[in-house]
Amino acid sequence: MAGSPDKSEEGNVGNVAQVVVVLVTGGCGYVGTHTVLQLLEQNVHVVVVDNLAGVTRGNDEKKPTSLERVEELSGKTVDFHNVDINDAESLDKIFKLYRFDCVIHLAALKSVGDSCSLPLDYYRNNVAGTVTLLEIMKKNQVVKLVFSSSATVYGEPQYLPIDEQHVTGQRVTNPYGRSKYFIEEILRDLCTSDPKWSVICLRYFNPVGAHPSGRIGEDPAGVPCNLMPYVAQVAVGRLEKLAVYGNDYSTPDGTGVRDYIHIMDLAEGHWAATKKILKEKGAKAGEEGAGAGGSWLAYNLGLGRGYSVLDVVKCFESVSGRPIAVDFVQRREGDVASSYSDCSLAVRQLEWKASRTLTDMCKYCALWCTFESLHLL
Amino acid sequence: MAGSPDKSEEGNVGNVAQVVVVLVTGGCGYVGTHTVLQLLEQNVHVVVVDNLAGVTRGNDEKKPTSLERVEELSGKTVDFHNVDINDAESLDKIFKLYRFDCVIHLAALKSVGDSCSLPLDYYRNNVAGTVTLLEIMKKNQVVKLVFSSSATVYGEPQYLPIDEQHVTGQRVTNPYGRSKYFIEEILRDLCTSDPKWSVICLRYFNPVGAHPSGRIGEDPAGVPCNLMPYVAQVAVGRLEKLAVYGNDYSTPDGTGVRDYIHIMDLAEGHWAATKKILKEKGAKAGEEGAGAGGSWLAYNLGLGRGYSVLDVVKCFESVSGRPIAVDFVQRREGDVASSYSDCSLAVRQLEWKASRTLTDMCKYCALWCTFESLHLL
Repeated sequence: MAGSPDKSEEGNVGNVAQVVVVLVTGGCGYVGTHTVLQLLEQNVHVVVVDNLAGVTRGNDEKKPTSLERVEELSGKTVDFHNVDINDAESLDKIFKLYRFDCVIHLAALKSVGDSCSLPLDYYRNNVAGTVTLLEIMKKNQVVKLVFSSSATVYGEPQYLPIDEQHVTGQRVTNPYGRSKYFIEEILRDLCTSDPKWSVICLRYFNPVGAHPSGRIGEDPAGVPCNLMPYVAQVAVGRLEKLAVYGNDYSTPDGTGVRDYIHIMDLAEGHWAATKKILKEKGAKAGEEGAGAGGSWLAYNLGLGRGYSVLDVVKCFESVSGRPIAVDFVQRREGDVASSYSDCSLAVRQLEWKASRTLTDMCKYCALWCTFESLHLL
Repeated sequence: MAGSPDKSEEGNVGNVAQVVVVLVTGGCGYVGTHTVLQLLEQNVHVVVVDNLAGVTRGNDEKKPTSLERVEELSGKTVDFHNVDINDAESLDKIFKLYRFDCVIHLAALKSVGDSCSLPLDYYRNNVAGTVTLLEIMKKNQVVKLVFSSSATVYGEPQYLPIDEQHVTGQRVTNPYGRSKYFIEEILRDLCTSDPKWSVICLRYFNPVGAHPSGRIGEDPAGVPCNLMPYVAQVAVGRLEKLAVYGNDYSTPDGTGVRDYIHIMDLAEGHWAATKKILKEKGAKAGEEGAGAGGSWLAYNLGLGRGYSVLDVVKCFESVSGRPIAVDFVQRREGDVASSYSDCSLAVRQLEWKASRTLTDMCKYCALWCTFESLHLL
C-alpha cells in the first residue's frame, strides 16, 4: 500500500473515520481537475490515472500543469500515473499499489464531431477502455464506481424536462453518445449479474465555467465545439464571431435552449455520488437484498432549467464587458430546439443541488479564458 | 504473402477470376466449420483465427478436430491460427501474412445464460474483441466484413414476421443480445464515417442441424441451452427428458414458436453475403456515392416460418424413431410466444433462400449427435 495521509488529513464519509482512497481516471481533464480538487478538499487520498490525450500543455512533465495547479490550489498532493485505461497490465499494477474504496471513471474522448469521423477511437477508448477498467476492478475486488455519463444518452428528448425515467439509447445522433449509452448498459448488466457492485452514472448536461481562482478550466485546444468556450474565445478576440446554428426554433428567442451546469456544481455532484456509493453495502450472498443484483443508479446533473444561445451571449457580454459578434447560420442536423433536466432525483437522493448561476458560469469561464490567454502570450 | 492455391483451385466471384482470400474468425465453431466448408467448396483460400474457447475436443492439437474434419470433407486445407481476436499484436501479424479480400467475423461467446452471469466476458470477447479486429482491419486496409449478428437484436418482437426494418436494441433481454446490437451499431458508425467500408450483418434466427455427413456439428459440451440439441440428447438417452417452458402461450399448441434455420442454409447465406460484399466497390474520395458513407446492410437469415416446441419434438421423434419425454414447466422470464423472420430481403438482394426443411434439420442433428455419441464411447 502506498503511504497513507496523516491522521489530520483523513478523508471522512459520514461518521466513518477512515482514509478514503479514490481512483480518478481522466483526472487531468476538465471535469477531472475540478473533481480531484473537490475530493482533496474533503481529505480524500486521490490517485489519478490519465493518458494525457486530452491535455495539450504540460503533458511532457512528470505531472501535467493542470494537476500541479490542483495541488497548488489545495495545498495537497495527488498521486499521478500516466497510464492508458486500455493498458490492463499497468492498470492492474496501480490496483496493487492502493486499496481503492471507489473509482470515479472520467477517462474518455468527448468530442461529438470527432466521434463521427473516428468512431473506432471512441469505441476503443470509451467502451473497450471501460471494459478493461471493470475487469481490473473485478480482479482486485474494487466494486464501487461513479461513471461520467452524459445527457446525450437520452437522444432526442421525448418530453421536457428530462428525468432519469426518460428512455435512453434511442435516436442518439453520434458515436460519442452511443459510447456513453453502451457503457451505462454494460454497467447495468454487471450490477444485475453480481450483487456486490454499486454503480452511479452521472448524466451531465452541459458543464461550463471554471474554478473561482481561474487557474483550472477546460483545455482550450483548437476550436471549441461547445457554446461557452466558443463565446469566450470570441470575447478575448481569439475568434472573430460566434456562429449560431438556427434562430427559428420554437423557443422564446428562436435559438436553441440547453441546460448548463457550472463545473464546480458538477464536481460537488461527484463528491455527493461518491459519498452515497461509499455508504452502500454490497449485498452478500444470503443477505437481505441479495439476488436482486447490485445497485445501479443514474442521476441527472444539470441546473434544471434551460438558457438559449442568446441568453448565454448576453450574459457573457455583460460579465466580460466585451461585445460578442454573432452570425446566424443554418440549423445543424441532429440539434433539437430545447433540452433541459429534471434534477430532483439527485436533490433527493444525493442531497446535492446546482447553485451557481449562469452569471457565475460566464464569469469564471471568462476569468479562466483570460488567465489562459495571458499565460499563452 | 502465404502460398497461393493452384490455378485449378482459384476462388471465383462472378466473372472475376482471382484467388479470393477470406479470414474467418471463430472458424472452428458450429457456424464456423460449416461456413469454412462452404467457402472451400467455392475454392476460396480460407484462413481461420480461433482461440478455441468454444471447442471442447481436439483443442490441444495443432489443428482442432473440427477443422480437420472440414479438411477431410473438402479435400482441401485451411490455414489455422490459434489466436484470440483481443490479441491485437498477433492478429496484426496474420494480416501481414495474407492479403484478405474480406473477413467473416464469427468469433464470439454465444450462451445467453452465461452472458447474464458473466456479462464482462461477453463485452470483452464480443464487443471489445470486435473493436480490436476492426482496428487491425483498418490498419491493414481490409474494409469488407460479414458479421455474425443475431435475431436477438430485435428484442421482443413488435410485429411478425420480423423484417430488417424492425427496431433493434430495445427490450433486448440479455447481455449476449446487447453485445450483438452494440457491434451492429459500431459497424454502422464505422460505415457512416468512411465510404471505403462495406459491412453485412447477418441476423441469424435459430441455427440447427448439421452437415449431411454427420461429421461436423454443434459442440455438445455440457447441457445444451437450445432446444434442438437438448431434444437430440434426450433422444440418444444422455438426458432424461425435455423441459418445455410454458404450454399456455397464444400459439397453435401453446408452446413457443421459433424460426429454425438449417446450418447448411446458414453457411450458404454466408457465402451469398461474401459474394455480394466482394462485388461492392468501396466509394473513393471524389467518386459518385462518396460522402454518403460506406455500405452497411443487415439481412435476416431464417426459414421465414415458425415451428413450435412440440412440432420440433414430434419431428425429431419421427426421424429418430425414439420417444422424447417431455415435462411442461413454467414459462421463462423474457421468453416470447412467437418469433419468426421475413427473409425476403435476403432472397432479393443476396439471391439466397433457406431450402432445408425441419425434417432435414432434425435428421442431421440426430445423425451428428449419434456420430458424436459413438465417438465418445
